[in-house]
Amino acid sequence: MRIGIDIGGTTVTVGMLDDNSVINKETIKTYPKDGADKVIKRINLTIQSVIDQSGACLSDISHIGIGCAGMLDRSRGTIIYSNNFGWKNVLLKDKIQKVFPLPVYLENDANCAALGEYVAGTGKDYNSMVMVTFGTGIGGGIIFDDKLFRGNNGFSSIIGHLLLVTDGELCTCGRKGCWEAYGSVNALVKDAGELADQNPDSMLKKLSDRDGELNGKNIFEAIRQNDKAACELFSKFIHYMAEGVTDIVHVFNPQSIIIGGGISEQGEIILEPLRELVLKYTYCGATTMPVIKTASLGNEAGIVGAANLDKYHD
Amino acid sequence: MRIGIDIGGTTVTVGMLDDNSVINKETIKTYPKDGADKVIKRINLTIQSVIDQSGACLSDISHIGIGCAGMLDRSRGTIIYSNNFGWKNVLLKDKIQKVFPLPVYLENDANCAALGEYVAGTGKDYNSMVMVTFGTGIGGGIIFDDKLFRGNNGFSSIIGHLLLVTDGELCTCGRKGCWEAYGSVNALVKDAGELADQNPDSMLKKLSDRDGELNGKNIFEAIRQNDKAACELFSKFIHYMAEGVTDIVHVFNPQSIIIGGGISEQGEIILEPLRELVLKYTYCGATTMPVIKTASLGNEAGIVGAANLDKYHD
Repeated sequence: MRIGIDIGGTTVTVGMLDDNSVINKETIKTYPKDGADKVIKRINLTIQSVIDQSGACLSDISHIGIGCAGMLDRSRGTIIYSNNFGWKNVLLKDKIQKVFPLPVYLENDANCAALGEYVAGTGKDYNSMVMVTFGTGIGGGIIFDDKLFRGNNGFSSIIGHLLLVTDGELCTCGRKGCWEAYGSVNALVKDAGELADQNPDSMLKKLSDRDGELNGKNIFEAIRQNDKAACELFSKFIHYMAEGVTDIVHVFNPQSIIIGGGISEQGEIILEPLRELVLKYTYCGATTMPVIKTASLGNEAGIVGAANLDKYHD
Repeated sequence: MRIGIDIGGTTVTVGMLDDNSVINKETIKTYPKDGADKVIKRINLTIQSVIDQSGACLSDISHIGIGCAGMLDRSRGTIIYSNNFGWKNVLLKDKIQKVFPLPVYLENDANCAALGEYVAGTGKDYNSMVMVTFGTGIGGGIIFDDKLFRGNNGFSSIIGHLLLVTDGELCTCGRKGCWEAYGSVNALVKDAGELADQNPDSMLKKLSDRDGELNGKNIFEAIRQNDKAACELFSKFIHYMAEGVTDIVHVFNPQSIIIGGGISEQGEIILEPLRELVLKYTYCGATTMPVIKTASLGNEAGIVGAANLDKYHD
């Protein structure tokens, strides 16, 4: 038995796993502004609760793996800095080991999600994969030779900050023209809002009024119903998706690219035009064309990946 | 002793090496339009000549390594396709082994140059490196964990076709907006020509008239003399260089980036503003900032790398 934890800006999920099956799990709100100490105390209480519910003893559990957003020092098990949480130099591993004397492994959340899909999801049929997660931003996790690719000091795979337009839209990172300023779900929602305002008769505008906001779900509702404004938006969005995915093909030549995030629920609606454009844009065409599929573990990918960190920690 | 061969569109160099020292070498014109058979016959004659000049016997030579442009099948030792040469399905390894019964290794030229710098040039002090070669296009070679990174089937590292501007300038590859359509020496020369025409009093224009053409060398002559038009051009060019290098930092997080190609002779003139901009554009700033240096082996990098393919062939 092993424990996988996924610490995000909004929620924390703690899961008990037997091999890669989730036996039981609990999700709590993060409330990062309470400060690291309080949040970690709640995480420890949740770990205890998950252990109790599973019927396991501490001696049945081999390790705890944690996926967490932010800049991490994996060897020391600390969060150097997390802009999502507003935390600095948090001794996460120590504070958990104080309560649970087990091996604790720490890894960034995007790598954990990729690892989850690789060991137990869509990626398990492929030798190499790049997971691309579309959400607030665009995150990435890269696996080659049965290893997480981490670069020189763990800061590789920042694929959302590949360039789409030099001197383009200002990105949250301060650079201008990053892929995620155009191709993230946040960017899609922003563009949809502008288009809805410009087209008061569009379904986009109606759904925005109905739901009080536009979001990934209702934008795709409009796309599926062939709303003209929404379809225009969609073809631009798929173009942006394909440009970034093509860059990934060019530099990594992976066997598979796995699309994650809520948007992956749209399946072939996205995959079909995406594959077509990537094939068109890619330098070596069919020779390098990877399999492009959607992720299959949903939001459990993070805890599954985290629970596997014992074997993928270097 | 070992033989390293660098087959380019213009010249072929064959070198005899003792460890990583080039004992002697010969360079011939490629004339690829003569067809693969004739060219390979000339290469075989040059190999024999280099062996004779070195005083070695065939039994002193452990292997022949070859770097070659184009799409290769490394395991079979064939050139699948080379647009530079206009060749298809050339059994290069077989045709050389027929004359020289030695192990023959084949690798693409950009990877060989990177490997040369890694084992014996600027890269030898670093655990990981990405070599970026600026020339007609922009080529790349990536080394991590003491291995050439080749992706799933040998088509990774096509860094010249990372995107700089979606829907931008048409690239020779057919995609619009690739880095090499803006940041290669070819692109620099093209932009310089337009600027010279627009500024008839500029030094760019004078040097263009003096030399009958603009090229990397006289453009940098104008830059060093603070010609206004040339300096304007240079700051745009360094911006393009830095945008692409930043993307490489984001996805690979290498310990070092080695700048190759004729342009690397310019040294700190390029490196200083390049480092400054990459630091500015990079997501994690100083945390991920690689060492950025120029290559040191010049056009011998290819044969040195090729001669080392026995240890880096998988």
